[in-house]
Amino acid sequence: MRCARQSRSSSLSRVGSGTRPPSCRRGPGGPQRLPGRLCRSDWVRRRDGAGAMSGLLISRMFLERFGERLREVEAEPGRPVEHVVIDVESGMPLPPAELDRVEIAFFSNDARYRRQPFIDALERSQNLKWLQLFSVGVDQKAYPSLRSRGVTITNAPGANAEPIAWTAMGAILWLGRPFRHWAGAQGRRAWDPIHYDDAPRDLAGQTMVILGIGQIGGRVARHARYLGMRVVGIHRHPTPDDPVDESYPPSALPSILPSANWLVVACPLTDETRGLVDADLLAALPRGAHLLNLARGAVVVEPALIEALRTGHLGGAYVDVASQEPLPPESPLWDAPNLILSPHNAAISASYPAASAECFFANFRRWRRGEPLEGLA
Amino acid sequence: MRCARQSRSSSLSRVGSGTRPPSCRRGPGGPQRLPGRLCRSDWVRRRDGAGAMSGLLISRMFLERFGERLREVEAEPGRPVEHVVIDVESGMPLPPAELDRVEIAFFSNDARYRRQPFIDALERSQNLKWLQLFSVGVDQKAYPSLRSRGVTITNAPGANAEPIAWTAMGAILWLGRPFRHWAGAQGRRAWDPIHYDDAPRDLAGQTMVILGIGQIGGRVARHARYLGMRVVGIHRHPTPDDPVDESYPPSALPSILPSANWLVVACPLTDETRGLVDADLLAALPRGAHLLNLARGAVVVEPALIEALRTGHLGGAYVDVASQEPLPPESPLWDAPNLILSPHNAAISASYPAASAECFFANFRRWRRGEPLEGLA
Repeated sequence: MRCARQSRSSSLSRVGSGTRPPSCRRGPGGPQRLPGRLCRSDWVRRRDGAGAMSGLLISRMFLERFGERLREVEAEPGRPVEHVVIDVESGMPLPPAELDRVEIAFFSNDARYRRQPFIDALERSQNLKWLQLFSVGVDQKAYPSLRSRGVTITNAPGANAEPIAWTAMGAILWLGRPFRHWAGAQGRRAWDPIHYDDAPRDLAGQTMVILGIGQIGGRVARHARYLGMRVVGIHRHPTPDDPVDESYPPSALPSILPSANWLVVACPLTDETRGLVDADLLAALPRGAHLLNLARGAVVVEPALIEALRTGHLGGAYVDVASQEPLPPESPLWDAPNLILSPHNAAISASYPAASAECFFANFRRWRRGEPLEGLA
Repeated sequence: MRCARQSRSSSLSRVGSGTRPPSCRRGPGGPQRLPGRLCRSDWVRRRDGAGAMSGLLISRMFLERFGERLREVEAEPGRPVEHVVIDVESGMPLPPAELDRVEIAFFSNDARYRRQPFIDALERSQNLKWLQLFSVGVDQKAYPSLRSRGVTITNAPGANAEPIAWTAMGAILWLGRPFRHWAGAQGRRAWDPIHYDDAPRDLAGQTMVILGIGQIGGRVARHARYLGMRVVGIHRHPTPDDPVDESYPPSALPSILPSANWLVVACPLTDETRGLVDADLLAALPRGAHLLNLARGAVVVEPALIEALRTGHLGGAYVDVASQEPLPPESPLWDAPNLILSPHNAAISASYPAASAECFFANFRRWRRGEPLEGLA
């Protein structure tokens, strides 16, 4: 993904002297801003443009972080745009007059943690034509109704794949090397080395089966091969270009699972994949196998996962997702044995917002030039 | 290291029908054995050989695990050898008459956990000429007195480097990705993702400085470069072949440390390196840097490490070694914040005993043919 790897630092450094627009930031001496409203300098600057304006719905934090880069893209020839800025932190709804101007929207990383105000705004934006997502998830409840209204939804494949795959590699090494044993001994202040007879099997030579060879699955495959594993991809349309040792369609799963020391879930949540990893599928894995779920919680039947960990049939698991998010405190998933759980957070990295912003900017350029969008979700 | 990577499985499968020597294993119907003594079948078989026998001191467990492979090597032309087998588990000392026959010895992995009986036997073996170690450590207290008696000591460089480097990579990813935050949240049953502002810096682009570019340091360098890091090696004799981006002599450390996000200790313990990583050196690292000690505890001044973790100057550390081993329960190292501690166990892997045995077999062949030994420690 080019958009995932582009750096914005060199571009940013070109802005600043003379061309820099008035700051929208709060603070001593800065222009006043009403939460959820365009700040005055933005408004004036936009109204200076010629022709009919299309409203771009963005979060206040996105504008603060990437405003200079955004204005740089907007300075290129193309359809004029005005910013409709929502303060998702305050949750203050935008007035209908502003939402009526919204034709395109970017759901940026920061809005994820306060998503309801942004989603409410999307639902109330009757002229919305295009929504760009910072992520690859397509199972958000609001999207079907947007699609039924004719809204084009695009996502950012690859923007989060890199950090997620590194997180997965960390989990593989933590589960595959005896860190759990060591952490337990350290907690007991016990110098308790693992002896000869209990030595863990080398990761090299083990087999990993990956459900879904997309941006994430492909990167995990590369890491697993670096670890010396044999990697088998499960892909609806296997191609010789899949970055795996072998590639099969889903129908081959029953014959492949008995050799899988690692099963990695990296497929989208669809009607076909919902509940795919159930008790029967887990039972087909060899005893001591490990599971990683990097996709969506509902692809895995959670009670079956918990039971397989409790019986020791699974040697360990890492899940970044849960069937219900946020996972309620009473869920038995929290303390399932040998489970590493992260709160849908495997992608967090300092570079992810910039990477997903670059994906948006790439499509934003296309949209302003009237070209087809990429990453249709 | 060829000896580290050779597999013994194909050789083993060739033994067994007809050529297999009588079993020494305990159990129903098997020959009787006295702990720490040659078993009768071994004794008889060895006494059948022609010429003067040189005694090879080995542990009972090594003979049980690798006896077939050993006999295969012994079947090749060369000096005849008889086995002097010590049961380190029971700690029963061998009688002087048997120890007087010992000319060569292999300190195998299993003897490490019950090392004193083996070391006692070495010290009492007055005719010992050569000791092969399973590991690379050269700081064992007994070795100087053996050397002063003219005993040649060889080690097994590379046999443990591969699993240690994978362990190091696991620690790097655990410390470098926000697993510690997630584990804390999981323990509180709290769905607590890290938000935008607290996102960890990407590992790619960070700088790692490695003290010592030997078998272990070289492999860690390769992994760090795979992670996208810039790797600087500190090497007494830098060469263009060092698997790093830049290589400097130790005198360059003061100018290099301020850019080191990761400092990896992978040098032998010598008079020059004892206490090398002290409070001043740690203070020269940027705030938030991480330390890995894969070498020997005494290279790092432990109180300085603990203090740097407590103040947060170090963002985290992984140590496989301690100044005193076993680390006593009252040591403050156990619960230093953001510290991962393993009990000199980073090398543990199912393949390590076979890998170090192959290093011994390679030298054993040389010794039997009268060729120079490799891996002089």
